[in-house]
Amino acid sequence: MFGQWKLGACLPTFASCADRYCLGGYGRGGATMEEMLAMARKVEGLDGLELVGNWHINDTNIAKVTGLFRDNGFAIPMIVPDLWTQAKWGRGSLAAADAATRRGAVAEVKKCMDWAAEAGCPFVDVWPGQDGFEYTFQADYSDAWKWLRDGVAECAAHSKKVKVLVEYKLREPRGHCFLNSAAKTILLLQGIPNTGCLLDVGHSLAAGESMAEAAALLADHGILDYVHLNDNTRSWDDDMIFASVHASEHLELIYWLLRSGYKGWLTLDIFPYREEKIPAAAESFAWVRVMIQRIQARGLDRITEIVRRGEGTDSVRLVRELLTGSAPAGKAGA
Amino acid sequence: MFGQWKLGACLPTFASCADRYCLGGYGRGGATMEEMLAMARKVEGLDGLELVGNWHINDTNIAKVTGLFRDNGFAIPMIVPDLWTQAKWGRGSLAAADAATRRGAVAEVKKCMDWAAEAGCPFVDVWPGQDGFEYTFQADYSDAWKWLRDGVAECAAHSKKVKVLVEYKLREPRGHCFLNSAAKTILLLQGIPNTGCLLDVGHSLAAGESMAEAAALLADHGILDYVHLNDNTRSWDDDMIFASVHASEHLELIYWLLRSGYKGWLTLDIFPYREEKIPAAAESFAWVRVMIQRIQARGLDRITEIVRRGEGTDSVRLVRELLTGSAPAGKAGA
Amino acid sequence: MFGQWKLGACLPTFASCADRYCLGGYGRGGATMEEMLAMARKVEGLDGLELVGNWHINDTNIAKVTGLFRDNGFAIPMIVPDLWTQAKWGRGSLAAADAATRRGAVAEVKKCMDWAAEAGCPFVDVWPGQDGFEYTFQADYSDAWKWLRDGVAECAAHSKKVKVLVEYKLREPRGHCFLNSAAKTILLLQGIPNTGCLLDVGHSLAAGESMAEAAALLADHGILDYVHLNDNTRSWDDDMIFASVHASEHLELIYWLLRSGYKGWLTLDIFPYREEKIPAAAESFAWVRVMIQRIQARGLDRITEIVRRGEGTDSVRLVRELLTGSAPAGKAGA
Amino acid sequence: MFGQWKLGACLPTFASCADRYCLGGYGRGGATMEEMLAMARKVEGLDGLELVGNWHINDTNIAKVTGLFRDNGFAIPMIVPDLWTQAKWGRGSLAAADAATRRGAVAEVKKCMDWAAEAGCPFVDVWPGQDGFEYTFQADYSDAWKWLRDGVAECAAHSKKVKVLVEYKLREPRGHCFLNSAAKTILLLQGIPNTGCLLDVGHSLAAGESMAEAAALLADHGILDYVHLNDNTRSWDDDMIFASVHASEHLELIYWLLRSGYKGWLTLDIFPYREEKIPAAAESFAWVRVMIQRIQARGLDRITEIVRRGEGTDSVRLVRELLTGSAPAGKAGA
Repeated sequence: MFGQWKLGACLPTFASCADRYCLGGYGRGGATMEEMLAMARKVEGLDGLELVGNWHINDTNIAKVTGLFRDNGFAIPMIVPDLWTQAKWGRGSLAAADAATRRGAVAEVKKCMDWAAEAGCPFVDVWPGQDGFEYTFQADYSDAWKWLRDGVAECAAHSKKVKVLVEYKLREPRGHCFLNSAAKTILLLQGIPNTGCLLDVGHSLAAGESMAEAAALLADHGILDYVHLNDNTRSWDDDMIFASVHASEHLELIYWLLRSGYKGWLTLDIFPYREEKIPAAAESFAWVRVMIQRIQARGLDRITEIVRRGEGTDSVRLVRELLTGSAPAGKAGA
Repeated sequence: MFGQWKLGACLPTFASCADRYCLGGYGRGGATMEEMLAMARKVEGLDGLELVGNWHINDTNIAKVTGLFRDNGFAIPMIVPDLWTQAKWGRGSLAAADAATRRGAVAEVKKCMDWAAEAGCPFVDVWPGQDGFEYTFQADYSDAWKWLRDGVAECAAHSKKVKVLVEYKLREPRGHCFLNSAAKTILLLQGIPNTGCLLDVGHSLAAGESMAEAAALLADHGILDYVHLNDNTRSWDDDMIFASVHASEHLELIYWLLRSGYKGWLTLDIFPYREEKIPAAAESFAWVRVMIQRIQARGLDRITEIVRRGEGTDSVRLVRELLTGSAPAGKAGA
Repeated sequence: MFGQWKLGACLPTFASCADRYCLGGYGRGGATMEEMLAMARKVEGLDGLELVGNWHINDTNIAKVTGLFRDNGFAIPMIVPDLWTQAKWGRGSLAAADAATRRGAVAEVKKCMDWAAEAGCPFVDVWPGQDGFEYTFQADYSDAWKWLRDGVAECAAHSKKVKVLVEYKLREPRGHCFLNSAAKTILLLQGIPNTGCLLDVGHSLAAGESMAEAAALLADHGILDYVHLNDNTRSWDDDMIFASVHASEHLELIYWLLRSGYKGWLTLDIFPYREEKIPAAAESFAWVRVMIQRIQARGLDRITEIVRRGEGTDSVRLVRELLTGSAPAGKAGA
Repeated sequence: MFGQWKLGACLPTFASCADRYCLGGYGRGGATMEEMLAMARKVEGLDGLELVGNWHINDTNIAKVTGLFRDNGFAIPMIVPDLWTQAKWGRGSLAAADAATRRGAVAEVKKCMDWAAEAGCPFVDVWPGQDGFEYTFQADYSDAWKWLRDGVAECAAHSKKVKVLVEYKLREPRGHCFLNSAAKTILLLQGIPNTGCLLDVGHSLAAGESMAEAAALLADHGILDYVHLNDNTRSWDDDMIFASVHASEHLELIYWLLRSGYKGWLTLDIFPYREEKIPAAAESFAWVRVMIQRIQARGLDRITEIVRRGEGTDSVRLVRELLTGSAPAGKAGA
């Protein structure tokens, strides 16, 4: 917990992260759920961990897993249907050209919704990362968009106990993903009850968005339901330690989350390929904490005043004062 | 004219294009409207030219200008309100924080709509290129979006004779523009009658979109009303000769324009900074023609069949056959 | 064979390619060397296949492997030391901060040189993909550069029978790689005999280079020894089918390879994740062939004349004529 | 002055900056040299201003200009030959295909060297921004490189009193510039005495380099002679306020400048298009000062120890401690 927010993490934070060359991963991650939970307990303030359907939670182990989480004092804020780690999704899931594949994807999401309901988890995260294309003339954009909408709608109607969040991303694993921006996500979900958006801020960065603007747009449309934190170099979803690259942009993001009244989870989606896992998570949260503290010390209203002025130098000075901890200059905007 | 399409050009195509260093421009463009029209007449098939409000058409010269166009056999497909060449718009036009500036911008658009009505021109092009920000904490995204919507709505209500198109762009002149994607444009215009989208395909490219996907999405939402053609390196709005960089992506764009039944203008928005103007325009249209011919020769349906198959190699082979003029292999999709 | 060039492929062309999510890979690749060779034989014109040290060739199997290649009529143009698939290289190989790791990397290269010598293979490919950094303040650039040079020099001195090529890449697997451009590669190898460059044209593209300019610069410095072919979206090393994205730039590359007198291997380094392997390779070579044919039909000298003129429109027209197969216009440069 | 460094500025810092749309510029810059100098005097610690040949200093006004600078207490650290604001350089300067243009460019540089010698200015800045290309098949890369080298060599031999610095940039005004990286600059200058590099850190960022790595590489090759400070979004040379976007990368740059013993000018090359000029410059220097202070307070050696460890989390923690002013954790690198 930190203020109004709960702090979470995806499990790769504590696992041996693979890349396409080093399939065994570089690091010393936990091999079992028990090991990962033990590592997670050493991250101060952590409230919960996301699970991937089938991999981490399934019909066989659900009682055991929820017990483990309860015993360790962790919530399960999210279950993620696995629509992306198996060859069968390689040409799409909810928006696949093949109708049977689309049906299979919907079934997978529903299954996770059932587990979520049973585990007391409020959300599933539909990430259509395999729905996209690599080459020109390889996708029927009109069909795909309709299928994606239909699939999400069918899932959302399955149960009122669990909300269906969708997560956008510019690319990867597909060369281009259909659902690749905050605005497209808003369009996709219009008129579909029981849905919302999971904003992965690194996906927003890599898509060329302003993360803060994306958060504001989603909040203004009433669908900012969950946030993933990480950072990257803007050219790829590197899943780096929070704020390690774009500190001023993350600071602005935190301001907009506070201003919009967001009260949900701040969940790490980092892949510490070569780093020790526990310190990498702790360092991310250390950045979160100092940013929130600095913003609150200055005061939202005084910051908003500068934001509305639109004077670039004043904005840069504000960032410098907040980040470096310098006292603000004597007169307003000086 | 070429098939179902009218061929147009923006006037910078025939002018001395400046950049921030060489303010006088590099080339041998026309200095007067008469000179530019004379150059335009040498581009085979050209049907019309866009005008910028105040600069090219205004209360004083409107009779003369429309007469000049009539005499030269050119239509005026578009009048563009000047919301971007004067210092007064430097901090925004329709979405400026300053209310008087916003009112001024709306007035500017309305004035152009009146001229358009008088000149028999069906569209104005609202390009909010100065509405954006450079720095973090420099923009109130929520306010700006509301102002932009309100401004467009007020303009659109001004006259039913002229449709208000909006043109999105990722950046430039502002470091970041608010209206920066096809999906955002759809969101912006929802519920505002008498509006549509001008798709500048180079803006789409530079925004990281698939141009074809953007065209499909806009057409499926019923607002693909006008198209600007050019090309660039994806990192900037270079306004280069059409298809000079992304031939396969432009080929796919043309296919989707044909498939969606788009019947409007194909207007060059190129800045031939260092090139002779007439050949640069002619070369752009030469690319357009060969692409349309190749697609029509193959047949939309046979192409759609490959598009729907989603098999990457087949898609690449199709592009190779269409671009290089190779005969398709013997069996379907082979 | 095609003209002066031998056609090769890396083995992932025929394997089930993994990514960080789908570790088993999406496709129907060959599981054994025999299966991959059988697939490779179905690609018309293919002359040889690269091998990765330890994985494909090692002390135990070298006689069998060379026999297999001989029986299938394939050359082994390249052996690639494995400096990138094991956790032990996660913090660097030749330029690792740890001295024992650096020694291990040099030993690995030497071992591959010995295998190469025994197998009649002229080159090893040193790709220092793990030598780099993710975060600011994480690398001592001065030390790393010196270590990289020292390591390459020590390898190059090991045997005169096998030439040590180095392959540059902007990023991946490291967030930033030290050896990331053609110019840096030239600097690195200055004064080190028995070395050269493997130009992976996709690495060049993703590094923001002009592939043709990189080839020219390397050739002018006498170290263009080997070429990998593929394509990508410029934001990542997608290892796509050759010319599927940047046809005009690949056409220019081929022109410069011809002009510089390059006579070596044109080896596919594609990862057809979701594609059938044999057609993906065949399609790449189909592009290569049509490009070479079109350039030779036009004539190097006539192309060079246009290149030297520097008139943008003439250059675009040339590309259009070459790609689409249109007859050149009647008068020079028209 | 700040510590070992002199603080400078280019004159656009105090001028009305134009872009390609708003040719008159947005802001309230100085119109005359006197006005700009009066503004510059209000920036605390500023030691000198760069001049552009012909525009700011020429045969007619040199006595007056040097007098003005002396009276205002400013040095002239740099004279920049104008090889980029006139249409005659549109197809190149030192590397133009036209021999007369190349001779003209060399003459322009020599003229500036003479003025520099007379004005007591140690450097000229040869920025070959017009030497490049937009289209494929538009440049003879081999010829251009030779011409660029020959031109620089001829200039450098003209006078030993003034050192010829060259400034690299990825692009703009040309779509692609030949001299576009630190490594290429080192290659270009090899064997040419009396030359060095002007590192514009924004050009380095936009070229995809690590600024710190570029500084280290140039310093290790003995040619880091001058530094331009600004920031940008990596996609364009935005010439923004220093550290406003990439604070952690600028912090690392400052560390490497200190570590390499760089003792020269830190000169702002910012274009405050819409900002008040004096605060924009002052804010940039405020960032410079706090970064230097924080690094010196921690101590170069203690930082270098972390840099050499290569542990990502430790590096991120260091950045957080330095930027936010947090006390380092109890044990080294903890």
